[in-house]
Amino acid sequence: MKFCSNCGSPVARRVPPGDNLPRWICDACGEIHYQNPKLVVGTVPEHDGRLLLCRRAIEPRYGYWTLPAGFMENDETTGQAALRETLEEAGARVELGAPFSMISVPRVNQVHVFYLARLGVLEFKPGEESLEVALFDEAAIPWKEIAFRTVATTLRLWFADRARGAFTFHAEDIS
Amino acid sequence: MKFCSNCGSPVARRVPPGDNLPRWICDACGEIHYQNPKLVVGTVPEHDGRLLLCRRAIEPRYGYWTLPAGFMENDETTGQAALRETLEEAGARVELGAPFSMISVPRVNQVHVFYLARLGVLEFKPGEESLEVALFDEAAIPWKEIAFRTVATTLRLWFADRARGAFTFHAEDIS
Repeated sequence: MKFCSNCGSPVARRVPPGDNLPRWICDACGEIHYQNPKLVVGTVPEHDGRLLLCRRAIEPRYGYWTLPAGFMENDETTGQAALRETLEEAGARVELGAPFSMISVPRVNQVHVFYLARLGVLEFKPGEESLEVALFDEAAIPWKEIAFRTVATTLRLWFADRARGAFTFHAEDIS
Repeated sequence: MKFCSNCGSPVARRVPPGDNLPRWICDACGEIHYQNPKLVVGTVPEHDGRLLLCRRAIEPRYGYWTLPAGFMENDETTGQAALRETLEEAGARVELGAPFSMISVPRVNQVHVFYLARLGVLEFKPGEESLEVALFDEAAIPWKEIAFRTVATTLRLWFADRARGAFTFHAEDIS
């Protein structure tokens, strides 16, 4: 951030009065520009014990496999974001279950949330951000080609929960 | 948003190529300025069956009661945000439990997350954003003076879970 989005003047970085963290401040119009973490929301789409993964057609991690997920938009709920991303990236209309994982990634100022989801009919196809979309059983998961640690963690938690016969909500951090 | 925070030129609002939502775009430098929901994170601090509430010293909802919570900052985890806000607003060092509620509020582009928390020692005092801090048993909760619907919902879920003897994670939306 170099300029004030409100008045176009250059901004300076310092701790505002009454605050304890440095912010981008506009001395011309007084605006304080807060920057906060973003939510990335997606699903773990399951069909007959297999999970639907997307191979990324975009950077970062082009060519690596991921669960369908993306940045939550304004004017939607986390559940709506999860359904939208699953449709956009995997061409799949899933039945949404409960939130399954919430993983903080402070290094990139993100919080990732994945929902349980059931893929009823076998309809899916790669969206613009995916090279291919495919179902994997546990033995076939391409663990060495998973795009993000939040996805690998969520997949491991999912198979562990399935093995013990109960899915619960998991909160984790990736440092 | 009126000006590009990268180069200071005026921005225009339209759907970028390959996108399907209008964004603020800078035609001078090409920057697309995405706007996304913010996370508000807090705790439900419990001591001997009573819950710690803060009376707000700031707008919105000056004078109304709330659970300690606030905007998550960059460079922290959701758990760290919950502990920080509880210390800042209620002067209380709690022992953090599991996430308890996650409530989308699309009308204001926020997602609120509250953690279970235990207040061990009886030490608390109002921070700069609180007029007073006090413990309430269920019968004393000032239901008509609760600042936000996410807080009232979280409190109701908490007492309902306590009544049935098990706390689980709850996801809700407030439209």
